[in-house]
Amino acid sequence: MSPLVLGVFQYMLPNGFSGQSWKHPDNRGVDYLTLDHWLGLARKFEDAKLDFLFFADSYGYPTVDGRIPDVAFRDAMNFPNADPMLVITALAAATEKLGFAVTASTVFEEPVANARRFSTLDHFTGGRIGWNIVTGSSQAAAAELFGREMIAHDDRYDRADDYLDLSLKLWESTWEPGAVRADKEAGVYVDPARVHPLVHQGPYHRSTGMHVVEPSPQRSPVLFQAGSSGRGRTYAARNAECVFVQGTTVEAVAATVADIRSQAVGFGRDPDGIKILVGMTVLTAPTHDEAIAKRAEMWAMSSAEGAAAVYAGNTGINLLELDPTRGLSQIEVSGEQGQSNIDRFRGADGRAEPTVGAILDEIRKRGLRGGIMAGAPSEVVDEMQDYVARTGVDGFLLEPHLTPGTYDDFIDLVLPVMRERGLARTEYQGDTLREHLFGAGQRWLGSGHPGAAYRAGMVPQGA
Amino acid sequence: MSPLVLGVFQYMLPNGFSGQSWKHPDNRGVDYLTLDHWLGLARKFEDAKLDFLFFADSYGYPTVDGRIPDVAFRDAMNFPNADPMLVITALAAATEKLGFAVTASTVFEEPVANARRFSTLDHFTGGRIGWNIVTGSSQAAAAELFGREMIAHDDRYDRADDYLDLSLKLWESTWEPGAVRADKEAGVYVDPARVHPLVHQGPYHRSTGMHVVEPSPQRSPVLFQAGSSGRGRTYAARNAECVFVQGTTVEAVAATVADIRSQAVGFGRDPDGIKILVGMTVLTAPTHDEAIAKRAEMWAMSSAEGAAAVYAGNTGINLLELDPTRGLSQIEVSGEQGQSNIDRFRGADGRAEPTVGAILDEIRKRGLRGGIMAGAPSEVVDEMQDYVARTGVDGFLLEPHLTPGTYDDFIDLVLPVMRERGLARTEYQGDTLREHLFGAGQRWLGSGHPGAAYRAGMVPQGA
Repeated sequence: MSPLVLGVFQYMLPNGFSGQSWKHPDNRGVDYLTLDHWLGLARKFEDAKLDFLFFADSYGYPTVDGRIPDVAFRDAMNFPNADPMLVITALAAATEKLGFAVTASTVFEEPVANARRFSTLDHFTGGRIGWNIVTGSSQAAAAELFGREMIAHDDRYDRADDYLDLSLKLWESTWEPGAVRADKEAGVYVDPARVHPLVHQGPYHRSTGMHVVEPSPQRSPVLFQAGSSGRGRTYAARNAECVFVQGTTVEAVAATVADIRSQAVGFGRDPDGIKILVGMTVLTAPTHDEAIAKRAEMWAMSSAEGAAAVYAGNTGINLLELDPTRGLSQIEVSGEQGQSNIDRFRGADGRAEPTVGAILDEIRKRGLRGGIMAGAPSEVVDEMQDYVARTGVDGFLLEPHLTPGTYDDFIDLVLPVMRERGLARTEYQGDTLREHLFGAGQRWLGSGHPGAAYRAGMVPQGA
Repeated sequence: MSPLVLGVFQYMLPNGFSGQSWKHPDNRGVDYLTLDHWLGLARKFEDAKLDFLFFADSYGYPTVDGRIPDVAFRDAMNFPNADPMLVITALAAATEKLGFAVTASTVFEEPVANARRFSTLDHFTGGRIGWNIVTGSSQAAAAELFGREMIAHDDRYDRADDYLDLSLKLWESTWEPGAVRADKEAGVYVDPARVHPLVHQGPYHRSTGMHVVEPSPQRSPVLFQAGSSGRGRTYAARNAECVFVQGTTVEAVAATVADIRSQAVGFGRDPDGIKILVGMTVLTAPTHDEAIAKRAEMWAMSSAEGAAAVYAGNTGINLLELDPTRGLSQIEVSGEQGQSNIDRFRGADGRAEPTVGAILDEIRKRGLRGGIMAGAPSEVVDEMQDYVARTGVDGFLLEPHLTPGTYDDFIDLVLPVMRERGLARTEYQGDTLREHLFGAGQRWLGSGHPGAAYRAGMVPQGA
């Protein structure tokens, strides 16, 4: 088995993933508004040769029946938070190799402004930036905050297609290599013959003009996406370079991975040109019993009330008002928002429909996203290997219970075992994030990617 | 005369202010895409105890008759550029006191997203951030790039009023002091009784919900504005804490300053609660003759073609197509865009109408904004004192010919003379940008500011 891709998952907020872990005495998430907190984490992850630090983000927060429940305030559930994009240059100045991925929404950000931000970050990180494309907020609160109507789920993906198409044209088609000469003696900063203003007339977005930022090391940021719904998987198969999948069971994740790779082939892409990661909270300790005790401690720190608030914020459904002994089929579910978080508890994936009580318990124990592995280091690595073998994922996005403790344990205890087995790198493969994922020299979007067509005939400078 | 406010003006692009100064061998503007360039400047300005680094910004670039002229590419006129907001945290990590001001447009940025960005920056800078409110782009290119119609000048200010009103409600009204307890033992991160979701139903912007960022040291960023038009002065008088005025003559600047302060009183504000700065390129050297030679060298580096491109990009008017011996009255001018840059050459300010040839010469020599002072250090300081006495400005926004050379000269030669005369500070007055401008303890918006009304009854923590 070759080395796995290893990213670190964080929100820029005081809380961790499980409902109430901010309260743990060893959790330093409460320092999230200090630069030192993030600088320390970034240096730690780079020392460990992890591939990237991934910032999830959303403008929303949990609401239940249109109101923010007290538990959301008390336990800082997705909220308060801050804008992680703004801290990237500070982290870049303190590191040399670590990649970064930042979330930005195709609903709430203007495409031209967003393209300029990622080009700016790609310059200042030296080609270490990725964009986690979120095609809408699953939280009604964000739409209300922006004074917008919620956009239907599939329409959001049509908009997101058009948005990405415009973004790729800006990054890939407007500047030829060599357009920037910066030749003081000749008096030519940009060679006018090598720039190409665009005209984009899409169904949702129009733009006429030049991408204002000169080409950055990667041109397009590495494209991340987290879509597990049907339409989301199609979007990922066409556009994403790194996909973050969710799933309740090994079988469900395996099916999603197979579907994405198969659809990618249909789009003319190399199926291995997409790295697929699954979110995982890895709780480890020198012995099995200590690790299991950590998991029990984590579970003990959460409540059904908090779990219900998180779920309602994503789906609009207040589980506490339902019959806990029956499943979600007891109500009409529109699926307009938070679809994947509804689908996964509907009894899809070949499972019997779980009861509302079981759903609450599951969310209480692990939040809405990834899985949990708990055990001694070699047990955990065994489980990771088994997981990879059975699902076909390329690696893991490491979710915290405690920051930085969960990562310290992983780095100190799990990574050495992974390295012994050839499952973790001891050095970065290149200088840019895309090279970390796809190998030295792969600075630009792969040739099968739709963005590559926009730079027909261009080759990287120095290549 | 008390110490003056001294800010540094920069765009995040390779060129300086005068048309072609990027080509000068000593100009390091071409390093603008490296963090080291900006880190070095920020440390230099902090060592000199300058108040703040101000980043002008725009999504636009010069177009002439709808096309980007070759000279704009060759001489990097406003373009290519990068997003300066993204570099602030890197600079904050390398400094302790220097303030920062960043431009954001009320036309091109969403108010909720913009408010979150500035709150984030205020946290990570420890209260050292200011927002330069731009109420629209004067450049048609930006509107085309965003696929938007240009918005009429006065309507833009009505929108900007509504935008700022929403922003101030988010920053000032939603979180009471003490709302964030972060008390792990009590299990209370936010006290739900001390937060107040808002409902904003303005003529242009609607928003319902919570400001997602907990209160930052200054709550609202320091509010900068650069408006010299009639409507712009009214906006500044009501809202701005620091105004950047433009003007061709001492008399015109004096009249603008008097008008802004008088209107501020009409809005119930302390007229000295607004710091008014004028843009100035200060060229100095040990002797008078050397300084004058620097000015001649700067003038020699620019062309009428470049001046025409800059002017056309701001106003839509191609001066090269007009009769150079007559004034702007030879054509119909709508004044919809770049109004102040049309007005100032119309023969207003009590001047005879300049010819198109004279306009081109003036722009060629100094760009579209501030003035130039050239002389030995004591001559320059004499001129600054005279300028302040005659206009009532509170200080200067220092514009570069060469970066960093123009600033090095100012710091090494002019500042010591200013300090001898009590015109420049030898230490910062406080920790936050607002304290640098208004004195120790003045962390929040002043009591006469419209934003202060939104925090009725609140007092700063620790005050």
